Amino acid sequence: MTARAFILLSGGIDSSTCLFLAGREYTDVTGISVFYGQRHVRELEAAKTVCRLQKVKHHILDLSAVVPKTMLTDTSREVPNVSYEEIEGVSPTYVPFRNGLLLSAAASWIMGEHNRSSADFDLHVAGAEWALYFGAHAEDAHAWAYPDCTPEFIGAMANAIYMGTYQQLRLHTPLEWLTKADIIQLGDRLGVPWDQTWSCYAGGQLHCGTCPTCRARRQGFVRAGVYDPTMYSAAPAATL
Amino acid sequence: MTARAFILLSGGIDSSTCLFLAGREYTDVTGISVFYGQRHVRELEAAKTVCRLQKVKHHILDLSAVVPKTMLTDTSREVPNVSYEEIEGVSPTYVPFRNGLLLSAAASWIMGEHNRSSADFDLHVAGAEWALYFGAHAEDAHAWAYPDCTPEFIGAMANAIYMGTYQQLRLHTPLEWLTKADIIQLGDRLGVPWDQTWSCYAGGQLHCGTCPTCRARRQGFVRAGVYDPTMYSAAPAATL
Repeated sequence: MTARAFILLSGGIDSSTCLFLAGREYTDVTGISVFYGQRHVRELEAAKTVCRLQKVKHHILDLSAVVPKTMLTDTSREVPNVSYEEIEGVSPTYVPFRNGLLLSAAASWIMGEHNRSSADFDLHVAGAEWALYFGAHAEDAHAWAYPDCTPEFIGAMANAIYMGTYQQLRLHTPLEWLTKADIIQLGDRLGVPWDQTWSCYAGGQLHCGTCPTCRARRQGFVRAGVYDPTMYSAAPAATL
Repeated sequence: MTARAFILLSGGIDSSTCLFLAGREYTDVTGISVFYGQRHVRELEAAKTVCRLQKVKHHILDLSAVVPKTMLTDTSREVPNVSYEEIEGVSPTYVPFRNGLLLSAAASWIMGEHNRSSADFDLHVAGAEWALYFGAHAEDAHAWAYPDCTPEFIGAMANAIYMGTYQQLRLHTPLEWLTKADIIQLGDRLGVPWDQTWSCYAGGQLHCGTCPTCRARRQGFVRAGVYDPTMYSAAPAATL
């Protein structure tokens, strides 16, 4: 089997960095983005652009019928204007078991798309040649803000995917122990085009600069000491 | 939080038996069935009927946009006319990582439907009160026919769901080590209305009697020594 890499790609900083990491190891690379009823398609456009610039394939999975409605999809709910560090416990942007669902749907699509016939499975191949990259990082997991980004979740999900796909697909989480600033330094060395990536939860033309993800993005660049080319519609908050 | 049980319910022998098992332990029970583009809706009707008879709730998740196309959904492919025991390696009815996807979608729906606000999570509750029943059994797992029914997969997926839902939801697999005949004996004691359950992969008015699942059903009743009320359109095969 050809070695292949697939990246769960939102078009933000973390998953775009994963795409560039995968590009160093694999020649056959596909970004997989999920439409789950987002408030806006900016992140899907960013994911598509990043794939085009990297000359890799891009596939969009439509999960809008099954991802629960939350602040990220329901425009009647307001996007909070705070930083992640000010949020205690569960993040208001948490979509229940979202990453379990996204990773499962990606694994199912990958195996269905590329391994249609049971004859293609070789139960005796030692070690899967296929990789599914997932850009969860240490700040997502911190204080259990996103339980489906924790090392505990990742370890379990990696096993479930590996066993459930006849040991054909391995979950790769190269950012698992990195902070946002670490990732920006890494992505910067790899040449990630930051101005083409998209993080904001609000639906504007520019990054709002004040939602939790914009704040983490802004702060990440500052901490990394990397120039931030992002156009934000609001000046940095005092609490940044 | 109210203790609740959810059952991934196809309307066949195994999941219907799970529904009855859950009914002994929980007062708040919901069957969850998945529409994934099946050749026919007989199994969804069976699931609905079993829930109505048991006086429990029923919910249908639409995953038809994401479950890979296989023999089970593509009418241009023929349903094999053999028993599972004659199939070597991967089952032709295997839908890649289907159970990972179904369990993840169910977990996501359960948490989204019942736990909309982050204020509802209590990180300090010891032990989840909610259960997701999954009727995988020993013959599904045997010889890796369905990798996403194996104890290895179940253990990993149970951890992923538990960790990814803030320890609110546990996977229950009471049939994990039972054969089809064991399950029929168990379900019979619990009063499962076998004539209302549906197993067949083909799209007829009656169970075909010759597809792998019909054969396993027929053989299960014989081995269990339980009367089989099922109307089959073909006589038992010689190889049964």
